Amino acid sequence: MKRSDLTEKILDIKREKEWSWSYIAGEIGGCSDILIVSALLGHMKLTKSQAAVAGKLFGLSKTEIAMLNEVPVRGAGVPMPPTDPLIYRLYELVMINGPALKVLIEEEFGDGIMSAIDFDLELARVASPKGDRVKIGMCGKFLPFKYTAASEQHRERHLEEA
Amino acid sequence: MKRSDLTEKILDIKREKEWSWSYIAGEIGGCSDILIVSALLGHMKLTKSQAAVAGKLFGLSKTEIAMLNEVPVRGAGVPMPPTDPLIYRLYELVMINGPALKVLIEEEFGDGIMSAIDFDLELARVASPKGDRVKIGMCGKFLPFKYTAASEQHRERHLEEA
Amino acid sequence: MKRSDLTEKILDIKREKEWSWSYIAGEIGGCSDILIVSALLGHMKLTKSQAAVAGKLFGLSKTEIAMLNEVPVRGAGVPMPPTDPLIYRLYELVMINGPALKVLIEEEFGDGIMSAIDFDLELARVASPKGDRVKIGMCGKFLPFKYTAASEQHRERHLEEA
Amino acid sequence: MKRSDLTEKILDIKREKEWSWSYIAGEIGGCSDILIVSALLGHMKLTKSQAAVAGKLFGLSKTEIAMLNEVPVRGAGVPMPPTDPLIYRLYELVMINGPALKVLIEEEFGDGIMSAIDFDLELARVASPKGDRVKIGMCGKFLPFKYTAASEQHRERHLEEA
Amino acid sequence: MKRSDLTEKILDIKREKEWSWSYIAGEIGGCSDILIVSALLGHMKLTKSQAAVAGKLFGLSKTEIAMLNEVPVRGAGVPMPPTDPLIYRLYELVMINGPALKVLIEEEFGDGIMSAIDFDLELARVASPKGDRVKIGMCGKFLPFKYTAASEQHRERHLEEA
Amino acid sequence: MKRSDLTEKILDIKREKEWSWSYIAGEIGGCSDILIVSALLGHMKLTKSQAAVAGKLFGLSKTEIAMLNEVPVRGAGVPMPPTDPLIYRLYELVMINGPALKVLIEEEFGDGIMSAIDFDLELARVASPKGDRVKIGMCGKFLPFKYTAASEQHRERHLEEA
Amino acid sequence: MKRSDLTEKILDIKREKEWSWSYIAGEIGGCSDILIVSALLGHMKLTKSQAAVAGKLFGLSKTEIAMLNEVPVRGAGVPMPPTDPLIYRLYELVMINGPALKVLIEEEFGDGIMSAIDFDLELARVASPKGDRVKIGMCGKFLPFKYTAASEQHRERHLEEA
Amino acid sequence: MKRSDLTEKILDIKREKEWSWSYIAGEIGGCSDILIVSALLGHMKLTKSQAAVAGKLFGLSKTEIAMLNEVPVRGAGVPMPPTDPLIYRLYELVMINGPALKVLIEEEFGDGIMSAIDFDLELARVASPKGDRVKIGMCGKFLPFKYTAASEQHRERHLEEA
Amino acid sequence: MKRSDLTEKILDIKREKEWSWSYIAGEIGGCSDILIVSALLGHMKLTKSQAAVAGKLFGLSKTEIAMLNEVPVRGAGVPMPPTDPLIYRLYELVMINGPALKVLIEEEFGDGIMSAIDFDLELARVASPKGDRVKIGMCGKFLPFKYTAASEQHRERHLEEA
Amino acid sequence: MKRSDLTEKILDIKREKEWSWSYIAGEIGGCSDILIVSALLGHMKLTKSQAAVAGKLFGLSKTEIAMLNEVPVRGAGVPMPPTDPLIYRLYELVMINGPALKVLIEEEFGDGIMSAIDFDLELARVASPKGDRVKIGMCGKFLPFKYTAASEQHRERHLEEA
Repeated sequence: MKRSDLTEKILDIKREKEWSWSYIAGEIGGCSDILIVSALLGHMKLTKSQAAVAGKLFGLSKTEIAMLNEVPVRGAGVPMPPTDPLIYRLYELVMINGPALKVLIEEEFGDGIMSAIDFDLELARVASPKGDRVKIGMCGKFLPFKYTAASEQHRERHLEEA
Repeated sequence: MKRSDLTEKILDIKREKEWSWSYIAGEIGGCSDILIVSALLGHMKLTKSQAAVAGKLFGLSKTEIAMLNEVPVRGAGVPMPPTDPLIYRLYELVMINGPALKVLIEEEFGDGIMSAIDFDLELARVASPKGDRVKIGMCGKFLPFKYTAASEQHRERHLEEA
Repeated sequence: MKRSDLTEKILDIKREKEWSWSYIAGEIGGCSDILIVSALLGHMKLTKSQAAVAGKLFGLSKTEIAMLNEVPVRGAGVPMPPTDPLIYRLYELVMINGPALKVLIEEEFGDGIMSAIDFDLELARVASPKGDRVKIGMCGKFLPFKYTAASEQHRERHLEEA
Repeated sequence: MKRSDLTEKILDIKREKEWSWSYIAGEIGGCSDILIVSALLGHMKLTKSQAAVAGKLFGLSKTEIAMLNEVPVRGAGVPMPPTDPLIYRLYELVMINGPALKVLIEEEFGDGIMSAIDFDLELARVASPKGDRVKIGMCGKFLPFKYTAASEQHRERHLEEA
Repeated sequence: MKRSDLTEKILDIKREKEWSWSYIAGEIGGCSDILIVSALLGHMKLTKSQAAVAGKLFGLSKTEIAMLNEVPVRGAGVPMPPTDPLIYRLYELVMINGPALKVLIEEEFGDGIMSAIDFDLELARVASPKGDRVKIGMCGKFLPFKYTAASEQHRERHLEEA
Repeated sequence: MKRSDLTEKILDIKREKEWSWSYIAGEIGGCSDILIVSALLGHMKLTKSQAAVAGKLFGLSKTEIAMLNEVPVRGAGVPMPPTDPLIYRLYELVMINGPALKVLIEEEFGDGIMSAIDFDLELARVASPKGDRVKIGMCGKFLPFKYTAASEQHRERHLEEA
Repeated sequence: MKRSDLTEKILDIKREKEWSWSYIAGEIGGCSDILIVSALLGHMKLTKSQAAVAGKLFGLSKTEIAMLNEVPVRGAGVPMPPTDPLIYRLYELVMINGPALKVLIEEEFGDGIMSAIDFDLELARVASPKGDRVKIGMCGKFLPFKYTAASEQHRERHLEEA
Repeated sequence: MKRSDLTEKILDIKREKEWSWSYIAGEIGGCSDILIVSALLGHMKLTKSQAAVAGKLFGLSKTEIAMLNEVPVRGAGVPMPPTDPLIYRLYELVMINGPALKVLIEEEFGDGIMSAIDFDLELARVASPKGDRVKIGMCGKFLPFKYTAASEQHRERHLEEA
Repeated sequence: MKRSDLTEKILDIKREKEWSWSYIAGEIGGCSDILIVSALLGHMKLTKSQAAVAGKLFGLSKTEIAMLNEVPVRGAGVPMPPTDPLIYRLYELVMINGPALKVLIEEEFGDGIMSAIDFDLELARVASPKGDRVKIGMCGKFLPFKYTAASEQHRERHLEEA
Repeated sequence: MKRSDLTEKILDIKREKEWSWSYIAGEIGGCSDILIVSALLGHMKLTKSQAAVAGKLFGLSKTEIAMLNEVPVRGAGVPMPPTDPLIYRLYELVMINGPALKVLIEEEFGDGIMSAIDFDLELARVASPKGDRVKIGMCGKFLPFKYTAASEQHRERHLEEA
């Protein structure tokens, strides 16, 4: 069984039961909705206890429950550039604003990156008279590039014994 | 002259003058730092008055100032997937979280997208004892897909006169 | 079940029943033919009531009807560049006329885009003694790029409390 | 000299002179604005007399004028998929609506294509209280696929003399 | 059922029956062998009556016969660049001779293309003492690029009423 | 100097002198127009004597004349898939008709290919009341795949002495 | 049935029977081992009599035997660049030595290529005290590019009658 | 000036002066040789004081020294897959061993990654009678994926005020 | 049966049995854990005796055991660039550090490569108060490029007898 | 200066002096012609003494001579798939025969590869009454994949001290 087959099965049950993602995430609980949905779509894992709850909810086999608890091959099957307009807009924002974000983050924090691992993602609806807005909050730990001191690598220029 | 040549020229002057982006954006003013930096890097435009200020600051010719006031070919010269780790992490976040964001936004808002045009982008530093965090706020108007009613398109099935 | 499997099933029934797209779209109704056909081909959604009608027409299961009411991964499975000559010609028109349309729209409207979401698409036959012509009308709302004022982003340069 | 160098030169003069595309197209005249702008951007040709007028307007050399009268390598240097949002939206419309347009055109006209050569392109502004709209009209001759009769190709199965 | 499945089925029957393409095309008749074989391989359509004959010959179902009468997604599943040497040689000829053919056709005919739709394709064997030769004749209508006159597009610069 | 620089130089002189390709090919002579034009565009070579004539005609240096006599890196700089409509149509013809041509050539000739090296290419105008047609004749030697007999390769299974 | 399915079937029987390729090629006989193995892997054909022997050996159906006698779509399913190190090394050798081989072959033989069709391929083991070596011998007929004389193509500049 | 131009300049001076990388890194000092060389090749930055030393060593301008102190667009201009055999072997090792490393790291550490930012890289020569060996040591901090608790994102399901 | 099907089967049994990779590798034994896991994931082979043990452990058929003993098409099905963050980080390290490693290895060892075949790979956990670290040790034999002496290739300039 | 600029310079001098590759390789001497030509084309290095001779022959500067003695970025600038027919035929041979060579080499030698580093390449002309043949001899050391014993990697499962 492939992870994508399990995803299809879960989606079929969701359709059959007429459940919303909100309901499903509420039932499983334990972490943010985005993470739970990502796990069910095959890009994150559930904890053992979450997977057990999900297994009961969807009527999954032992093997399928174990699979939900495994780290998947993240990003598998997501076409890049994205063909879907909703996802493409995010891709476009990275392409167009990436260079400016790079130099501004580096100016403020120094050489490094915003972690995509020690990272929080929030999704919110912002009411507005001109039309509600989608708000996506990304917040990751700044990781400075490590510049190994020469003294730490003194072995580099000398021979090691095999 | 290509826009990328102008970008190189501006970057060389910035190096020569030892200016920070923060200083440059402060001098030009009129809109967010990210937009000003994006414009100087060739992915946004400056208004006429901003371009005039930038032209004075960098000692640009009339043609170069006019170019800063033009809408560039956004995204030109940005490798995708990004090779630079800072920008790649944002790309990865889209690839991995895109599918979950899609279904959650659609469940909350209906069929549509977060606009990448009527859109605000914020960058902030969040202090934390475990290491400061980079916060990127994205907020775009939700645009519902328009489902043209059949009545509006009644001409479709009939012949028009040339 | 994947959306592409449902599309294949619908196409097989259409062949078996010898229905035209025009007949099918007329039966389902409620919006433009192009949107209905796009939905049945897996690139748009039907409303709940449209999906119910389509389900009755094609003899679909509850799960399949629910799927027709879901927003699909638009563009999935469409090869780009298109291999099919009819679709390729449209692609070619974008490639060759895109740069001119860009500068003319920007000169007329300012910095922004024609929305592909708040958008109408019409197809018509134009009779002509030299051979009938295909007419495709595209009409989308002009969306101006939002240039966030510096004042709105005052938080950017200061630290937030975690 | 490459066509792209000539394009850069023309754009620099346009900036220097502060001319609009509308002014330039009006001066050159003789065909639609879109075609004239496309030619100056390197994707169409100007007629000899148009090229002469353009040459006078921009102060071009004999060789440069001759180049404007040549059919260029259309589409050269246009990134596909387009990185620029304005052009990308058109690309996206082809990707998502292409399959539905294909089957509807074939149902109405039979097997064939909308010509991208015997083709008119119009651009218009449509005023609307909710925000003006961009209207792009495409109209191309329908070309039926030619199904050569077996009798016309009788030579195929027999040897020819060298 | 996908068109490629039908193609596989037809090929299996051809193998089982030990039929040549020549025999099959002769049985179906009505147009050139190349077109009939292309249709059976999934890149052209058969007329209703041809499809009926083919259906009888191969023992196809009503749905399968209807599929043969549909315009397929031409070019689907053909790897480009071609991996097969026979097809690659044709690709190479286009790549290497394309630029010269372009300028010579344009010099002789003006700005335009050889239609790939109103087009005849012939295949012949040419006997030669040094080894027989394959002769491929391509003959398509010259289509001149249409340069819409400015007068036809007068609406372009003015507002339309919504 | 790169071959593409020489091509640009030759094209500039052609523009300056207002020569047609037909005139140039007639002056150089010695082989088909298509080959001469291909050589000047950087995809074929000229013989020493042809190169000498071309050198005189265009006023080239000794090094440039020698370059025209060299076999170039054929196909260099030709975008594939072609962006130019005239060349793309040929590419499309290969993609769509390639599979049928393959099986028909193999049925007629056996396993092998039409040579793209021992190959003639002709271009002609075919007058027609419905609009003149472009005729491209391709004729290449059939090369049968060589199936080396087992006896010829007896060394394969045994060791050779170094 | 696809050729790749037949390949999988043959490989499964080979595993089941514990046959070596050497044994299989010896049983089928009639041409070089490399060609027989290539045919069983889907990149060459077997003759009718070879296919009959192979069919008996592997217990294949009439249709499967016929498929082995067909020219396959050579190269289908082989990833390029190759992911497998053994095949990648050959790819790398072409990439790195290709330019030198090109100029040396052209200097020795003139303008042309080494045929990949009229071609012998040998594989041998060369014993060596420092470790045995793999020897691959490639030997193909030199094919000179044909430069069609102008006289043969006199029709090119004149009109043909339709 | 582009970073790649500065790299070319530094390499030319290195050739002129006949310096080894070891000498250059020793002169600049302050961190590992690999980092210094990477910076000079355009993929890392030097500190201000290192850049000053490098500037004196190579006789660079103020602008060039400032550029060495900037974070470059890492990875720019490195072809992937790598064409150079030395770098390709590393790429191949990732492709082939990546899946096993993934599951073993996840089994040992849990869900997360080895940081490529808080990361040490060592290069050493290991003497061996059968031929010396290259030893590359990679050591990065394990970063666990952060699973944001549902409580932290309570705002997600509610509206914010604009 | 394809290798990837066998991999899926083994993974399903692992889930069912709740075995760790560490347990599985310990049971099979005979070589490093990384190699055993790579083999079970389809990128390495097991020896006959290892495959026999694995076959008993997983309850595999004779054909499946034989397949584990075959050299697979290494790298098959691994997306490159990797979509999974853990594997991508290794890819990024090659892209960014590759050029520096190349020149430093060549300066130390001369022209050649680190073998990816005569190669050891180690994975270790390094405890650290700031967070444990992943250590990957790569150690491959240095292979000098062989520069064949002219005398060894004297046959090159002379004709061989066929 | 880039290596490709030096290559262009050398080629220009070769044209000016009317030297053959054979003459140049004979003058430089010291290793096989293919290696010398590859070095001059930018894919191999010359030894110091060879580079000195080449420098004298071509009148190169000290920096240029040093560059010839550097290991280049092999394969840089060689389009893959090759556009040139002569090089493409070699690529095609790898694509089509690669799978058979793989299994036959593995059956004969075990798991491993033919080295592309410890490797000899020969080029010869084979006279034949039916037309001379090009013979390319490849001979590389067989390198067996190293299967590290479990005992050598005992550290893997235990923690190291930082």
